[in-house]
Amino acid sequence: MTERIREGDLILLLSGDGNTYLLRVEDRPFHTHRDYVKLADLVGQPYGTRLTGVHGTPFYALRPVIHDYLMKLKRATQIIYPKEIGIILLKLDVGPGKTIVECGTGSGALTMALARAVGPEGRVITYEKEDRFRQLARENLKRVGLEGRVVFKGSAEPGFEEEEEADAVFLDVREPWDLLDTAWRALKGGAPFGALVPTTNQVSRLLQALGELPFVALEVQEVLQRFYKLNPERLRPEDRMVAHTGYLIFARKVWER
Amino acid sequence: MTERIREGDLILLLSGDGNTYLLRVEDRPFHTHRDYVKLADLVGQPYGTRLTGVHGTPFYALRPVIHDYLMKLKRATQIIYPKEIGIILLKLDVGPGKTIVECGTGSGALTMALARAVGPEGRVITYEKEDRFRQLARENLKRVGLEGRVVFKGSAEPGFEEEEEADAVFLDVREPWDLLDTAWRALKGGAPFGALVPTTNQVSRLLQALGELPFVALEVQEVLQRFYKLNPERLRPEDRMVAHTGYLIFARKVWER
Amino acid sequence: MTERIREGDLILLLSGDGNTYLLRVEDRPFHTHRDYVKLADLVGQPYGTRLTGVHGTPFYALRPVIHDYLMKLKRATQIIYPKEIGIILLKLDVGPGKTIVECGTGSGALTMALARAVGPEGRVITYEKEDRFRQLARENLKRVGLEGRVVFKGSAEPGFEEEEEADAVFLDVREPWDLLDTAWRALKGGAPFGALVPTTNQVSRLLQALGELPFVALEVQEVLQRFYKLNPERLRPEDRMVAHTGYLIFARKVWER
Amino acid sequence: MTERIREGDLILLLSGDGNTYLLRVEDRPFHTHRDYVKLADLVGQPYGTRLTGVHGTPFYALRPVIHDYLMKLKRATQIIYPKEIGIILLKLDVGPGKTIVECGTGSGALTMALARAVGPEGRVITYEKEDRFRQLARENLKRVGLEGRVVFKGSAEPGFEEEEEADAVFLDVREPWDLLDTAWRALKGGAPFGALVPTTNQVSRLLQALGELPFVALEVQEVLQRFYKLNPERLRPEDRMVAHTGYLIFARKVWER
Repeated sequence: MTERIREGDLILLLSGDGNTYLLRVEDRPFHTHRDYVKLADLVGQPYGTRLTGVHGTPFYALRPVIHDYLMKLKRATQIIYPKEIGIILLKLDVGPGKTIVECGTGSGALTMALARAVGPEGRVITYEKEDRFRQLARENLKRVGLEGRVVFKGSAEPGFEEEEEADAVFLDVREPWDLLDTAWRALKGGAPFGALVPTTNQVSRLLQALGELPFVALEVQEVLQRFYKLNPERLRPEDRMVAHTGYLIFARKVWER
Repeated sequence: MTERIREGDLILLLSGDGNTYLLRVEDRPFHTHRDYVKLADLVGQPYGTRLTGVHGTPFYALRPVIHDYLMKLKRATQIIYPKEIGIILLKLDVGPGKTIVECGTGSGALTMALARAVGPEGRVITYEKEDRFRQLARENLKRVGLEGRVVFKGSAEPGFEEEEEADAVFLDVREPWDLLDTAWRALKGGAPFGALVPTTNQVSRLLQALGELPFVALEVQEVLQRFYKLNPERLRPEDRMVAHTGYLIFARKVWER
Repeated sequence: MTERIREGDLILLLSGDGNTYLLRVEDRPFHTHRDYVKLADLVGQPYGTRLTGVHGTPFYALRPVIHDYLMKLKRATQIIYPKEIGIILLKLDVGPGKTIVECGTGSGALTMALARAVGPEGRVITYEKEDRFRQLARENLKRVGLEGRVVFKGSAEPGFEEEEEADAVFLDVREPWDLLDTAWRALKGGAPFGALVPTTNQVSRLLQALGELPFVALEVQEVLQRFYKLNPERLRPEDRMVAHTGYLIFARKVWER
Repeated sequence: MTERIREGDLILLLSGDGNTYLLRVEDRPFHTHRDYVKLADLVGQPYGTRLTGVHGTPFYALRPVIHDYLMKLKRATQIIYPKEIGIILLKLDVGPGKTIVECGTGSGALTMALARAVGPEGRVITYEKEDRFRQLARENLKRVGLEGRVVFKGSAEPGFEEEEEADAVFLDVREPWDLLDTAWRALKGGAPFGALVPTTNQVSRLLQALGELPFVALEVQEVLQRFYKLNPERLRPEDRMVAHTGYLIFARKVWER
C-alpha cells in the first residue's frame, strides 16, 4: 500500500529550481521567492506526488531520508558531514541495539545519525557542556522523532558518568586527549574509539596520547567528496568543493599494550 | 559484564606488525610468517585481550566491526568500499526495518552492510546473474551471521520479480539504465534510488536515462579517502592512495515529472 | 646593487590585511577601503620596502612575479590556472628560444606564461577568433611588457596559417578535435601536443580523435591544489577549494602509427 | 627543416607497450624484455620516426622534453615531482637570466628544471652537504647538457656563501628554519622564497620561523595529480595515485615587518 501524506508529516519539498525544504504539512501556504503552494493540498496524496505552484513551478513531496535530516538540521556549530558520518558508522559498528557514547553533541548531527542507526533498542549517550547547543540538539532530534533514543548529558569533565561497556565512543571536542582515559574506561574490551579534529596539531597530539594508553589499530584519515554537474553531455565536476572538515582518528581498546 | 571469547567466535586478530586477520576461534595454532599463537588460549578471555606469540609478538583479539567484515570478505569482484558504503547508507536511508533491493550482488560487500543496517526486522533482496558470485556472497554473509536477512535472487532480466514498495533500490551493474524502469516500479513514492558506475561514459548515460523517467533530485559524486602515517612527530599522508572506485549517482522516485 | 623602485614600474602592493594589488607607480594616492598611501613615496625606495598608510596600515611594495601577473590579469573568460600552467610548461618543454603555437588565446593567461618562458629569442603564435578576447589578451601582455614575443592571429579555421616546425602546440578550444590535423602538421616530429577541456565528454572525443592520427604517448590528467590556513598552531586546509578547472590531455607527434 | 637524429643524441624511445626509455643513440642494440631494435638505424631519421623491432613491436624515437628528463633522472633520494616543480617555477618567477639559490640538491630534479628555465644567461647555485648526492646530481645535469648553468656547493652550514641579490631561494632540507636567516640575506628585496617539506609538523615550524623574520605573503599548499585511463569509451581515473609528496610553502622577503 502506497504511503500517503498526512497532516503533521515532516516532508522534504523539492522545488523545480532544485531547492529543497524540510517542513511540516500544515494548513498554510508555503512560499519560495517566486511561487507558492498550499501544503494542505498534499494531505492524502501519495509520497512522491507532484504539486504545481500558483505560478507554474513544479514541487515534489518526498519522504525525508536521514541524509536530508542531517543537511537540514539547525546549526549553531560546525557539523560533522555525511561524508564523515558514513565512515564513522561503519568504523564504530553502529547498528541496531548498540550503546554509543558521544562527547561534543554540538548541533546534534552525528547524534542524529547514531540515534537512527541504533534503532529503537539502541541508545546514544551524548555529552555537551554548552547548554544552548544541548538544547538545540535536543530540538533537532525531537523534530525527527529520535530524541527517545538519546540521553543528553552536560559536561564530561572530569569524566563520563557511569558509562561502561559502551559499544563505541566518539569524541568531537577541542581537546580529546583529556577524555581518552574516561573513554577507555567506558569502552568494552576490543571496542572501537573514534574522534574528529580539524587541525594537524590536534591529530599529532591525539596520536601521542593514544600511544600512551592501551589502544591499538590506530588510523588517521580524511574524506573528500566531489560533486558533479548534472548535464550528461557536458559532464564535469562542480567548480568548487569543501576542502576540509576534519581528520578522523580511530583506534580499538585493548586491556594492555 | 565484560564479554568473553568463546570457541567458534569470529574474531579480528591484530598482530604487532599491524596486520589483521579475521578468523574463527578453534583448537588450532595460528601462524603468521614469523610467529604463532594457539587460538584455544583465547577461550574464556575478555575481548581486547593480549596474547603473546611463541616468538614474542603481541597479538590482540578484537570483536570484529562491520568495517572489518567488509575489508576482509572474500572477493571475486571489485567491491564497493566503505567510503562509498557509508554515503550510500545515509542517502538510501538504510536503517532498522527497511526493505532494500540491490542488483549486482557481486561479492556481497554492500549486501552485508545493508543487511547489518536493516537489522533483524529488515530485509535485503539482492539480484546477481552469475551463480558463482551469488554463491560467494551467500558464504560471505553466512560467515558473519547475516544471511537470514537477505533474499538472494538470480538475473534481474527482464525485471525485478514481485518487488514493490521497496524503501530503496541500488544498482551496481554494467548497464544500470536497462534496469531503471523496473527500479522505478519497485520503489515507494518519493523513495531514494542509487547506483555506482566506474566510468564517466556510464554516468552520462545513466543521467540521460534518469532524465527520461520520473526521477528528481539527481546527484553525482565521488568520494576520496586519504590515510595518514601514524608518527605524531612526522605527520603526513600515506604516499599512495586509491584514486578511484566509482561514481555514485542518486535520485528520488516521483509519480510524474 | 639593490634594485630601486622607479616611476612607471609595475609593482605588487601587499596590504597588511593580505590583499594584493598590481599597479603602476605614479604620482597618485592609492586607496584601499580603509586606508591609503601616496605611490610617489615609493620612488627611489628598494623593492620590498614597507610603507605605512595614513591610518597605520602597513603596505609592502614587491616586484611582481609571473604568478602574480597570471592571477591579476583582466579576465573576460575562464583562465587556465597556474596549477595547470606549471605542468603545461614542463610537458610542452617550453623554454628559452622555443616556438609555441596556441589556439584559444582567451584572456591570455597561458599566452603570458608561454611568452615569459620562451624568453626574448622565443616566439608564441596564438590564435583567437573573438576580436574582443584578442584585444584583451594583447593589453594584458602589453601591460607586462611581453607582447613583443607574441604573434596574435584570428580564427584558426580552416587551419593554422603557415606554421610548421613548431616546438609545441596547445589547444584550449571547445572542439579541439577539429584542429588536430592542423596541429599535427604544425608540429616538429616527436614534439609535444597539449589541450585543456572542461568536460569528460570532450576528453573522450579528443582521445578518440588522437587515436586516429599519428600521435603517441597519450596522457590525461587533472591537477588539484589545496591551500592551508597559516596559523602554525592550528594548521588545517582552507574550508573550500577549486574542485575543477579542466582536464589536461597530452600527446606526441610521430610520422606514422 | 625537420631535425634528424644524430649519433650521440639523447632520445626518448617509446615502445608499443607504453614503456619509455631515455637513452643515447649509439651503435648497439636496445633490448626490452620481449623485443629489440638497433639504435644505429635511427641515425639520419627524423625525430618522431617509427622503428619496428625484430619481433614486430613498434618503437618511436622522440626528442625528450624536460618532463621526460625529470621522470628519468637517476634517483638516490625522494625527488620533487613535476606537479610541484611547475608551481615552483611560477611562484619563484624562474625565467631566462635569473639567479636562483637552492639548498638540498638531492638527485637534482628541481635543479635541472631551474637550470632549464633560467636559460644560458641564468645561473643556479645549489647546496648539498652529501657528496654522493652532489655527484649524482652533477651527472644527471651533465647528461642533459645543463651542468654549465649550475654551481654546485657543499654544506650550507653555517650559511650561504657570498650569495646576495638572488632572484629567488628554494629550500628542500629537513630543517629549513635553520636556513631562513641566510636565505633572507641572500634574497633581493621583495623576492620570492619557497620550501618543500613532507610533514605537517615541519610546516608548522617553518610558518612560525617565517613569522619571526621580515617575510610576508606566506602561503601553504599541496598539489595533487590524478591520471586517467585512456579508453575513451570507458573513461575513468587510474585506480591508484600518489597521495603525497610534500607541502609547498612560499613567502616574499621585505626589509622590515
